Amino acid sequence: MKLVLIRHGESEWNKENKFTGWTDVELSEAGVEEAKKAGQVLKETGYDFDICYTSYLKRAIHTLNNVLAEMDREWLPVVKSWRLNERHYGALQGLNKSETAAKYGEEQVKIWRRSFDIPPMALTEDDERNPKKDPKYREEDPAELPLQESLKDTIARAVPYFEEEIKPQIKSGRRVVIAAHGNSLRALVKYFDGLSDEEIINVNIPTATPLVYEFDDEFNVIGKEYLCDPDELAAKMNSVANQGKAK
Amino acid sequence: MKLVLIRHGESEWNKENKFTGWTDVELSEAGVEEAKKAGQVLKETGYDFDICYTSYLKRAIHTLNNVLAEMDREWLPVVKSWRLNERHYGALQGLNKSETAAKYGEEQVKIWRRSFDIPPMALTEDDERNPKKDPKYREEDPAELPLQESLKDTIARAVPYFEEEIKPQIKSGRRVVIAAHGNSLRALVKYFDGLSDEEIINVNIPTATPLVYEFDDEFNVIGKEYLCDPDELAAKMNSVANQGKAK
Repeated sequence: MKLVLIRHGESEWNKENKFTGWTDVELSEAGVEEAKKAGQVLKETGYDFDICYTSYLKRAIHTLNNVLAEMDREWLPVVKSWRLNERHYGALQGLNKSETAAKYGEEQVKIWRRSFDIPPMALTEDDERNPKKDPKYREEDPAELPLQESLKDTIARAVPYFEEEIKPQIKSGRRVVIAAHGNSLRALVKYFDGLSDEEIINVNIPTATPLVYEFDDEFNVIGKEYLCDPDELAAKMNSVANQGKAK
Repeated sequence: MKLVLIRHGESEWNKENKFTGWTDVELSEAGVEEAKKAGQVLKETGYDFDICYTSYLKRAIHTLNNVLAEMDREWLPVVKSWRLNERHYGALQGLNKSETAAKYGEEQVKIWRRSFDIPPMALTEDDERNPKKDPKYREEDPAELPLQESLKDTIARAVPYFEEEIKPQIKSGRRVVIAAHGNSLRALVKYFDGLSDEEIINVNIPTATPLVYEFDDEFNVIGKEYLCDPDELAAKMNSVANQGKAK
């Protein structure tokens, strides 16, 4: 049983080095190219899927669309859920990461970005960015919609969604791809690899690089690999790790 | 209760005046622009949706994607079914409509294109275009996959799909859009408007023009309109009607 995870390609706000969270920004041109390349690699290495999952955010949806277009698999069923959204970055959303580091200090930004259970400052209820005011979430229970999230909070909604909705598909033999975000995918990686709260903090997931998990019948991990040239992989991981520096 | 139907924008093979059917061709650049315009019109006139339906063919999927992108509704659920595919044009698929008219006569082409229950010549079982050889249909019952279809055959799979899958959504109050094809949409129009087998033959549905049906509680049609400038609508309808001429 295999599962493929793909983090979205570079977005307009990755490029501007801003905290994005639930802000619904577009892929950059480079991000579209990354996504197409991921689709080509999957096709060339013989991967195929039966069902696809993604978030409510267009940078993940477009990454998936581009992957499927390259694989000539746009007719596959695609299930979207906000539970695969990026971590909600609260009041940090829209702020530049380097400027925030200069203002609050690199260490504080590292805490917000990389601590396990400390969320950034919350949005206020009347903030225009409150998910309760966004039509995307109009069918959801308002009590479940966050104004801020720690990685722990993201895990608490992404992992149960995986267990209830996606895992049964994999166990029934269907080939699944998930196109999502840095932190919703870290939630899954922590769960699959049995990492501690400390260990997950330093895990970086490179953009638009298919990460293949293989499971045995008891859903133990028996294989894990990135479909990517090793040098390219190292460069991508380094780029993600450096985003919180003050410059 | 309202329902919006959208025929896909111009495809590469519409442009080349070829019989397309189940051939999975791309939208032309003009087709992409048409689809975006349809999305803009829907947004400007205040339409919104809860669930979307389309076929397994990328010219319909891309039309829907472009409509939803313009409406900022890409996060909506999208259900795909081959039962909304274009009519299967059998062995005519890939042939130029004017050349076919010159060879077999305009009258014969009109019969193939516009008769109610006469299908074109069937594909042979060993033809590479046989849907049984196409990964798109690998989860379908092979006995249901056609080698040729009349409009009657298209109705026989599109209307039951509408009745079983889509109508209950509309009746439960959900706002539905269907992005599909000339003949799968004619099947629905015949069903909604109670047209005879003769009457449907001369109905043309213009490309990428939202067609809004309004129903009462008993699902009787109480309103029907195209969201389009009347002159533009006439030009689009005329263009579809002239495709089978020998030139």
